[in-house]
Amino acid sequence: MALIEPQRRTGRLEAFSDAVFAIALTLLVLDLLPERAQSPHQLLENWPAYLAYLTAFLTIGTVWLNHNEAIARVRHADPIVMLLNLGVLLGASLVPWPTVLVSNALREGDRADQVAAMMVFAGVAVIISVPWVVLDLYLARRPRLLNSSADVTWMNRHAVISAGTLLIAGVSVGVAFVSPLASLVLYLPVFAVFIAARVVETNSEFGRETGGDPA
Amino acid sequence: MALIEPQRRTGRLEAFSDAVFAIALTLLVLDLLPERAQSPHQLLENWPAYLAYLTAFLTIGTVWLNHNEAIARVRHADPIVMLLNLGVLLGASLVPWPTVLVSNALREGDRADQVAAMMVFAGVAVIISVPWVVLDLYLARRPRLLNSSADVTWMNRHAVISAGTLLIAGVSVGVAFVSPLASLVLYLPVFAVFIAARVVETNSEFGRETGGDPA
Amino acid sequence: MALIEPQRRTGRLEAFSDAVFAIALTLLVLDLLPERAQSPHQLLENWPAYLAYLTAFLTIGTVWLNHNEAIARVRHADPIVMLLNLGVLLGASLVPWPTVLVSNALREGDRADQVAAMMVFAGVAVIISVPWVVLDLYLARRPRLLNSSADVTWMNRHAVISAGTLLIAGVSVGVAFVSPLASLVLYLPVFAVFIAARVVETNSEFGRETGGDPA
Amino acid sequence: MALIEPQRRTGRLEAFSDAVFAIALTLLVLDLLPERAQSPHQLLENWPAYLAYLTAFLTIGTVWLNHNEAIARVRHADPIVMLLNLGVLLGASLVPWPTVLVSNALREGDRADQVAAMMVFAGVAVIISVPWVVLDLYLARRPRLLNSSADVTWMNRHAVISAGTLLIAGVSVGVAFVSPLASLVLYLPVFAVFIAARVVETNSEFGRETGGDPA
Repeated sequence: MALIEPQRRTGRLEAFSDAVFAIALTLLVLDLLPERAQSPHQLLENWPAYLAYLTAFLTIGTVWLNHNEAIARVRHADPIVMLLNLGVLLGASLVPWPTVLVSNALREGDRADQVAAMMVFAGVAVIISVPWVVLDLYLARRPRLLNSSADVTWMNRHAVISAGTLLIAGVSVGVAFVSPLASLVLYLPVFAVFIAARVVETNSEFGRETGGDPA
Repeated sequence: MALIEPQRRTGRLEAFSDAVFAIALTLLVLDLLPERAQSPHQLLENWPAYLAYLTAFLTIGTVWLNHNEAIARVRHADPIVMLLNLGVLLGASLVPWPTVLVSNALREGDRADQVAAMMVFAGVAVIISVPWVVLDLYLARRPRLLNSSADVTWMNRHAVISAGTLLIAGVSVGVAFVSPLASLVLYLPVFAVFIAARVVETNSEFGRETGGDPA
Repeated sequence: MALIEPQRRTGRLEAFSDAVFAIALTLLVLDLLPERAQSPHQLLENWPAYLAYLTAFLTIGTVWLNHNEAIARVRHADPIVMLLNLGVLLGASLVPWPTVLVSNALREGDRADQVAAMMVFAGVAVIISVPWVVLDLYLARRPRLLNSSADVTWMNRHAVISAGTLLIAGVSVGVAFVSPLASLVLYLPVFAVFIAARVVETNSEFGRETGGDPA
Repeated sequence: MALIEPQRRTGRLEAFSDAVFAIALTLLVLDLLPERAQSPHQLLENWPAYLAYLTAFLTIGTVWLNHNEAIARVRHADPIVMLLNLGVLLGASLVPWPTVLVSNALREGDRADQVAAMMVFAGVAVIISVPWVVLDLYLARRPRLLNSSADVTWMNRHAVISAGTLLIAGVSVGVAFVSPLASLVLYLPVFAVFIAARVVETNSEFGRETGGDPA
């Protein structure tokens, strides 16, 4: 039947996802653009916007690093994979929304506004994580879509990590009732752990592939 | 004469289209970004924006999935294909416009505003579908531009489906006079059917290509 | 010395240019997004925005089609090519600016505003065309950067066409003093001719490459 | 273990970076889009916005040219490279922010606003440069991640150049206290030198690779 090369299809899924991540990440800057000239004092007072920017940037950056690792293990993206990936992109494309909500609420909103904003932030994390857990499990059960049998293990392990994000989102909502700022800052060490785990894991794999590194 | 490799030319058409789809999809979030801090009540009252976002996201997502399937069957994109594809992109790049119109009209507009907004939404669906029907038929008559003879059948079938979108757009305008909200919600099952059909069709093709799936 | 594969470098130049064209094209929709609900009457009164959108979309679409043809003939992009290409991208990324100027001026500005807006539109066309003429001539004199000797002829011919755009920009400024609307509409047949020429030219080349087409 | 092809991983790093650079560059135009029709006088009075646009465009353009050169020398991007690259992208995605600050401050702000805006501009240059210096040094110590041993020399040399950017950022802050406009204009010759150095360097390398150029 119709000849569709696997690489090509993963290629477009990657290109499209990269574009969505890159745009969502770059649109975050819109929250920083002022209508009028800013005094040094106004620039400093705007710190919640910078904190929200950094958290959102790291959110999308971490999602991108993980997406990279996950899709590198996929040999062929079937329509279900494409669909679940669209679910992840739906969440990623929403990130600028809670970012602006949190930034505005911390600058000028009351406690109720701040808690609501952090709940939307956590909700978007859930929208990203749920289709991803399903995607991990779907791929783990279909070895023919993956590059090697080791990738089955990786997908199962990654499903647990992705599900962990749901737990963190829940905790962050609880923390928001005590301190919305702490709830936002909570995400930063989570990303640090995520990224460090990826670095350790991939470095050890790469070490095994290429032999020791004299550096 | 000048040596232009077919793959390369399809590659840029895909990359450019992916970028336009990804940007149109990600710009939808601009409608959600508030100027000021939002109370929980304001966030809930804003539901028409969320519904419009979801419908528009699924519109572009479905277009992307179909574009993927269609262009994977094209071996060489000649200038007519590029031009018809630009027509599809013209429609896709307009999607944020009716999305904001519908979102604003449902929140604060009167019935006439809402009907007009849904007419623009349907109009944009028509701008996407008409060049696509022409593209399908153009490719079905030029087998040398396609990967295999099976793709001729696919293009003819897809032309009928794309033409069906025109029917749905017409129906949605009629429904808008009775209930603008129903007219918007009408698009959701349509996308579900579209996506399900693609999943069934491609899975069966892939099954034939690679043999049975033990999962 | 350092091993840099030619394909790869052209690949990134294309990917980056495609992204800039795609974003500039998709940002045009921002001019259409209203702050509040629109009545059917307001939607109709907004026609200058639609006309400006269509003209700007065709401007960038035509630039993209031409860029595609030109870069497909380049074997290796050296830094001068990259730099001249950045000049073309500077112009392309500016297109949303005169589009909004023209749209606003036709809706609510006086004659002086409209003439000024059309002068900016023509100025942006000049910013796109001047580096492109230089790029065409630079490449025509460096056959080693091109795929074949036939591409030298193509580049020389394209330099004349690009220079023709400068003439059209000048004429459109003259026409703007008589009728700003006519000055804007003037661009539409120009793009049609551009695109038709590309279709005829490439089809005839493709015909020679692959043999006759039975369709 | 899991088979991850080096090319593929560099490919996505490049595609994602290209998209971020392209979007940051194209979003700059948002600062030029007026709310209402502009008189010729208003268009001329807006010159600080044009100067800021040009400087920011050249900033991102120069970053892109350098990124191109640097990553072309990378054979495999490990997670540390990805992470340091995300740092560079964090800086690049922020560029529209100081651009709008400078543009607003020069048009309507007082001296303190202008100095603060130029300090943010310099700060963003620092955010781009610091991870880049670290990236250069990291790669210079890991030849297995590079294409050839000559690339080690290149990375060490580039680290010095990137560190030089930090010096320029410091000087520009000092100059800002005397004249904010001079501080902004100062960046233009810096980019010119950067680009000229790249042209000379790469041309000489390319000349050695391919033999003399008769043109």
